[in-house]
This record gives sequence, C-alpha cells and structure tokens, in this order.
Amino acid sequence: MLVLGIDPGTAATGYGVVTRDRSGLTRLVECGVVRTRARDPLPARLREVYEAVAELIARHRPDTMAVESVFYAKNVRTTVTLGHARGVILLAGELAGLTIHEYPPAEIKKAVVGTGAATKEQVQFMLTQLLRLKSVPTPSDAADGVAAALTYCMAPPLPSLSAALDVRLGKARLGALR
Amino acid sequence: MLVLGIDPGTAATGYGVVTRDRSGLTRLVECGVVRTRARDPLPARLREVYEAVAELIARHRPDTMAVESVFYAKNVRTTVTLGHARGVILLAGELAGLTIHEYPPAEIKKAVVGTGAATKEQVQFMLTQLLRLKSVPTPSDAADGVAAALTYCMAPPLPSLSAALDVRLGKARLGALR
Repeated sequence: MLVLGIDPGTAATGYGVVTRDRSGLTRLVECGVVRTRARDPLPARLREVYEAVAELIARHRPDTMAVESVFYAKNVRTTVTLGHARGVILLAGELAGLTIHEYPPAEIKKAVVGTGAATKEQVQFMLTQLLRLKSVPTPSDAADGVAAALTYCMAPPLPSLSAALDVRLGKARLGALR
Repeated sequence: MLVLGIDPGTAATGYGVVTRDRSGLTRLVECGVVRTRARDPLPARLREVYEAVAELIARHRPDTMAVESVFYAKNVRTTVTLGHARGVILLAGELAGLTIHEYPPAEIKKAVVGTGAATKEQVQFMLTQLLRLKSVPTPSDAADGVAAALTYCMAPPLPSLSAALDVRLGKARLGALR
C-alpha cells in the first residue's frame, strides 16, 4: 500500500510518500515541499502546485491520497486562499483515480501521537519512531505531509475480517498501529 | 475579443461567453450553468467543474477569463468550499494560457450598472440592454457569469493610446462602454 500524504498550502505544500506492508510496517519513501512565490499571480502558483502533485502521482503511483483538511484560521483570507490550493490538489488526485481521504489536524495528531491535542514536536518525534528515521523530516511542512500519509496507514478502511484480526499488539502508545 | 466570464460555485458555476468587436459592440455567444450534486464527494465535484470549464475553453478559445472573486460570506465553511471551486477554475484558465482577471462583486456591479451597490435585478436589466437580449439570462448564476465577462469587455486594459481615444460617447449610463 502506497500513500501520498499532503499538507496543502499556497506558499508551501508539504508531502510525504509512505508505504505500509502486510505486516503493518510503515516506511518513508520520499518527502519534501513544493514552494511557490508570493509575488507570482495566484493562477500561476496554483498551476505549480497542481503540476508538482501530478508529477509525484505519476512517479510513485500511490493508491491513496491523504490530505490534511482546512484549518479554519482566524484570517479568513488566508483560509480561502488555502482552499484554492486544496482544490487543485484534490483535482490532481481525482483525475489520477486515487482514493482520497481528508483528515482534520486533530485527527492526524490523534492517529500519530494518540491525542488530538499533541504538539508539533510530539508529532515529529512519533514520526521518527514509527518510520524508524534518524532525524525529523524537515522542513515542518514536509513532516506534516508525512503525518497525513501515516494517518491513513495507521487506520485504513478494513479490507476484510482476516485483515482486521491481523492486529499487531505493540507498545500501548502504538496501539493503533496494525 | 472573446471573454469567458465565470461566477464560481461548488453547487452551481455560472458562465457566459461574450465577444466585443473593434467598435465596442458586445454580443452574448453562450451562457449556462455547471451543476454538481451535493451528495457527491468534493473531489468528484471539483473534477466536474474543472472539466466543464476546460471544455468551454477548448470549444470557444477565449483570450481572457474573467472570474468573480470570493465573496467573504458569513459562513466561513461555504466560503472555503467556494475557494476549492475557484482554484480548479483558475487552474483550467492558466493551463490553457488565458489572461485571467478577477473582479470583486462590487466592481462587476459598478462596471455593468454604474454603482457597486446595484441590486441583482439592476445588473440583470443592464445585461439585457448592453447585450440587446430579449430576456434576462437564466438562471441567475448564468447571468452572473455573463456579468463577469461583460465587466472585462467594458474596461479592458488599454492596448494603445489610439484605442484609448476611440471612446464612444453613448448614454450617460453607458459611459464606461468603449
């Protein structure tokens, strides 16, 4: 199972590609950030985000896209601009025929750390543990994309009863990891 | 000069295709609405909007896209969802190489009626006058798309001084029409 996780943004869109094998083991394949310049017109920036995501899909051929859903910021204008970027990201996934899952920030924190109130540092620490990384993925936007992908890996829709019973009993903190 | 005007929406995206000849005469070529179903997932709805706009561009080959900019509604969730639809619409225009202009609702009203405080009915009345239509374009989303296109036709960027001097002195109410 190959998952493309995305933390959308107009200035910086973080992404992470994560695999999960039958035993439940997750592995980070690639992560990074798509940056656009604030001085460029919005349509040009949206095109850059769209083409970067389409290229990632073409190169990795993921089954699933996991996208962090909109954080309703105090600044409505920022939130709306973010909606534009999410629109073209969801479109790229839909046109490629991926199954698409959206997760609110609190759900991602809960899946990765065990509590929706986790700090950014706690999420980043757990990412390194779950993916056996030597260091935290940087910049933080990339880590957020990885966290979105991992959220789907930790709790995908159950394909069958036998798979549902194939639960690894790990440390209490990793209880959700199968 | 051929302009594709768009009033974006997730449920209903209105559009109008308007030409403007050298004498400043404007003509309505086509207008309509792209509807999506609320029960469909957001990515599928965004795909429908994107493909419909891309089809309009391929069929009419406009030079310019005129898009109504976001109205910051009281309901932030609605506004954000609208941002998603605008994102894929702007992307369709950008990928086709169109010049893209965005107009706030008040600017469209001012261009068509002469005041940013005009009512929907006043805008629709002026559309029929300016485009010599027998009736108001329906539904109202289509009329809003036509109004966006007409806004660009009424005040395009001046290509040259001679063009700037080629101002038709019409009725006072149509003062902006060149």
